[in-house]
Amino acid sequence: MKTSFLMTPGPTQVPPRVSLATAQEIIHHRQPEFGELLREITEKLKYVFQTQGDVLIFPGAGTGALEGAVVNFFSPGDKVVFGVMGEFGSRWAKIAEIFGLQVVRLGTEWGKAVTAQDLELLLTSEEGKGVKGVFITHNETSTGVYTNLEEIGKVCQKHKLLFLVDAVSSLAAIDLQTDQWGVDVVVTASQKALMTPPGLCFFSVSEKAWAFNREATCPRYYWDLAQAKKYLERKMPQNPYTPAVTLLFGLNQALDMIQREGLEQVFARHLRLSQMLRRGVEAMGLELLVKDEAIASPSVTAIVVPPGVEASNITSFMRQSGIIIAGGQAELKGKIVRVGHMGYFDAYDIANTLTTLGRAFQEQNVSVDLGQGLQKAWEVYNHG
Amino acid sequence: MKTSFLMTPGPTQVPPRVSLATAQEIIHHRQPEFGELLREITEKLKYVFQTQGDVLIFPGAGTGALEGAVVNFFSPGDKVVFGVMGEFGSRWAKIAEIFGLQVVRLGTEWGKAVTAQDLELLLTSEEGKGVKGVFITHNETSTGVYTNLEEIGKVCQKHKLLFLVDAVSSLAAIDLQTDQWGVDVVVTASQKALMTPPGLCFFSVSEKAWAFNREATCPRYYWDLAQAKKYLERKMPQNPYTPAVTLLFGLNQALDMIQREGLEQVFARHLRLSQMLRRGVEAMGLELLVKDEAIASPSVTAIVVPPGVEASNITSFMRQSGIIIAGGQAELKGKIVRVGHMGYFDAYDIANTLTTLGRAFQEQNVSVDLGQGLQKAWEVYNHG
Repeated sequence: MKTSFLMTPGPTQVPPRVSLATAQEIIHHRQPEFGELLREITEKLKYVFQTQGDVLIFPGAGTGALEGAVVNFFSPGDKVVFGVMGEFGSRWAKIAEIFGLQVVRLGTEWGKAVTAQDLELLLTSEEGKGVKGVFITHNETSTGVYTNLEEIGKVCQKHKLLFLVDAVSSLAAIDLQTDQWGVDVVVTASQKALMTPPGLCFFSVSEKAWAFNREATCPRYYWDLAQAKKYLERKMPQNPYTPAVTLLFGLNQALDMIQREGLEQVFARHLRLSQMLRRGVEAMGLELLVKDEAIASPSVTAIVVPPGVEASNITSFMRQSGIIIAGGQAELKGKIVRVGHMGYFDAYDIANTLTTLGRAFQEQNVSVDLGQGLQKAWEVYNHG
Repeated sequence: MKTSFLMTPGPTQVPPRVSLATAQEIIHHRQPEFGELLREITEKLKYVFQTQGDVLIFPGAGTGALEGAVVNFFSPGDKVVFGVMGEFGSRWAKIAEIFGLQVVRLGTEWGKAVTAQDLELLLTSEEGKGVKGVFITHNETSTGVYTNLEEIGKVCQKHKLLFLVDAVSSLAAIDLQTDQWGVDVVVTASQKALMTPPGLCFFSVSEKAWAFNREATCPRYYWDLAQAKKYLERKMPQNPYTPAVTLLFGLNQALDMIQREGLEQVFARHLRLSQMLRRGVEAMGLELLVKDEAIASPSVTAIVVPPGVEASNITSFMRQSGIIIAGGQAELKGKIVRVGHMGYFDAYDIANTLTTLGRAFQEQNVSVDLGQGLQKAWEVYNHG
C-alpha cells in the first residue's frame, strides 16, 4: 500500500531526490568538504530568503527558531509587540514572556490578519510607548491567513523598531522580500516549503539585528547566533557544534530544485494552486474560513466544518483514503480542517485532495457538488 | 573514490541500513503510525539507557541536551558542582553560568578523571555547602578519559544531590547503569555510539529529577522536558512540536542492531577494540595520553604528538589516506590526536587506523615500528 500523502501544513512531501540525498555517506563537520557544502547552502538560502544579510542554520525544530529570535535580540524587561492572529503567534508571545520580555499583544480575530494600521495605532497609543521590537507571523498556519509584511515593515522602520518575522509556513511559498521590506530577522524550518525532512531551522539576520544582538542579555547558548556567525565566517565555514549533516545533504538538493524552478515561479505556482483549491471548495458548496483574497494564504487553506459535523470524521475519512490533512487548533479545534499546499506538490495533488474532501463531507451528509468543484478547480488551474 | 572513513569521536560511521531508513517516505507526527514508532523507540531507548525512568527525544545537537539539563532542573542562583576534566565538562559549566547558576568547578588535569573522593572532599568543605546538583561528564571526548559513575553516584545519594551525566560519547559504548547507579539525568546525542546521523538528542529523567524540575525556574520553552513528557504520555505518543521524523526512522534501525548484538556484547566489543588500539599504539612506540587503564575510555583514544611534530600533519596525512581522526581541543590543541571508536566499527577499522597512524608519524620522522604495532594489536584482538 502507498504511504499516506501529506497535504498538511508541515511536514510536507519530501521529493525522492531529497530523501535519497539524506541517505548519503556521512561526512565530518570539521572537514573542508563540509565547509564547502555549508558555504554553498548558505548562498542558496540567501537567494530564497531574498537577503544580503546573514543566514544561519541550526539543528532543531521551527519552535527553536522562535525561541532563538527572542533570546538573541532582547533583554528581560524589554517591551515588544506580538501580532497574534492564531496559534503560532500566540506560542511566540508565550516564549517571549517565559524569557521575561514585556509582551504587548496586537490581537485580531482568528481568520483575520494583523495590519500595518493596527500596529501604527498601537505604537502611537500609551500602550505602545517604549516598544523595541515587533514580532509578526507571516503566514498563520493555524488559520491560513497571511499578513502584508511590506506595509508593516514601513511602520517598523518609521518607529525604528526591530522587525522579526515567523516565516515557517511561508518561506519559499509566499513572496518575502526580506531586505526590501526591512525585515530584520526571518525564521523558518526545513519541513515546509523547503521540502526537506524536519530537523533544521533557520534565521536571517540584518545589520540592525546584530546591533540589537550585542545589547541583548537574555541567556542563550544553544541558540547563540553571534557564535554561529563567527563559525560560519571561518575560512572553512563551520557550525559551533555538530550540525545535522545528512539533512543538509537533502536541503542542498531541495534548494537546487527551487533555484531551477525560480523563486517567482515557485510563488506563482503556490498562488495558482491555492486558487484552484479555494475556488473548487466554494464551487462544491463548502465554506472557506478566510474569505478575503488579500489575506488568503497561498500555502494553507482552512475549510469550515458546518455545525453538527464532527471535524475528526473528515480528517479520518481522508486519512483512510490516503491523504493526511490537519484539523483546527486551539479555539478553532472542531470548527475547521486545514489543507497544506506547499513545496513539492502539483495540480493533481490539489484535485485529489479536493475530491476526497468533497467525499468526506458527503459521508457526513453535507450537500457537496463534486462535479462542480472539480470543473471549477481545473478551469482555474488552466485559465487562472 | 570512497568517502573518507570516520574514526572521529563523532559523528561516527552510519550503517547503510540506518542511512537507508532515513530516506523512507515521511509520515506525519500527529498520526497513529508515528505514535507507534515513538512508543517503540522509547522502549528500546530505555533498554540502552538502562532505566525504568522517562526517556525523551528532541530535535537538536548534544549541546542542546547539555543546555536542557541545566534549565530543566535548576534556578538562577542554585549552587551546583561541575566535574571539569576537559573541553566538554568546561562547556557544560559555562552553559550553567550563562543561565545564572552558581558553579563550583571540580577540576582535574586534562587526561585525568574526576573521582568520588574528590567530590566527597569538596562537598564536605566550605565551598561545598548548599550544593544542589552534580554534573559529570561520563566520557570526556576531548581527552579519552572516563569516570567511575557508580562511585560518584554513591556520594551524590549520600548528600541527596541531583546527579546529571553527559553520556554523549559513552551511551551504548560504555556501561552506564542509570537506575542502578542513581543517575538522575543522562543526556546524549544520536551521532556517536547510537550510529544515527546527527540531529537528535536525548534525556533520561528519574523521579527525583522530576521533583527538581517542578521547582526549577530557569526559563525554558524549546527544551521543556515536562511538556515533552506530557505529550509522550498521550494515548497516541507525540512530541510538543515537529520531531525529526526521518532521523527517528534511522534510530529505530540502529536500536534494533544494538538489541540484536546485546548491550553487554556491545560494551565488550568497545572495550576489546579499544585495547587492540591502545596496545598497538604502544607497541609501535607511540605514547598514549591516558596511561591509567582504569580511566582509559573504550570509545575515544588520545595519542600524544611528540614535541617538534605538527599535529595537523598527522590528521592531514590520515585524511589524505581516507581516514578522518580528530586533533586536540583547547589546551590540548597540537599536543594530541584523537581516534574515536564507537558504534559501527570492527577490528579491521582499528587495524587500518593503527597502520595509517603509524605511517603518518613515520612521515614526520618519528620512529614507529608498524609491524610490532599490528602484531600486538591482532594478538590483543584474538587473545585479549
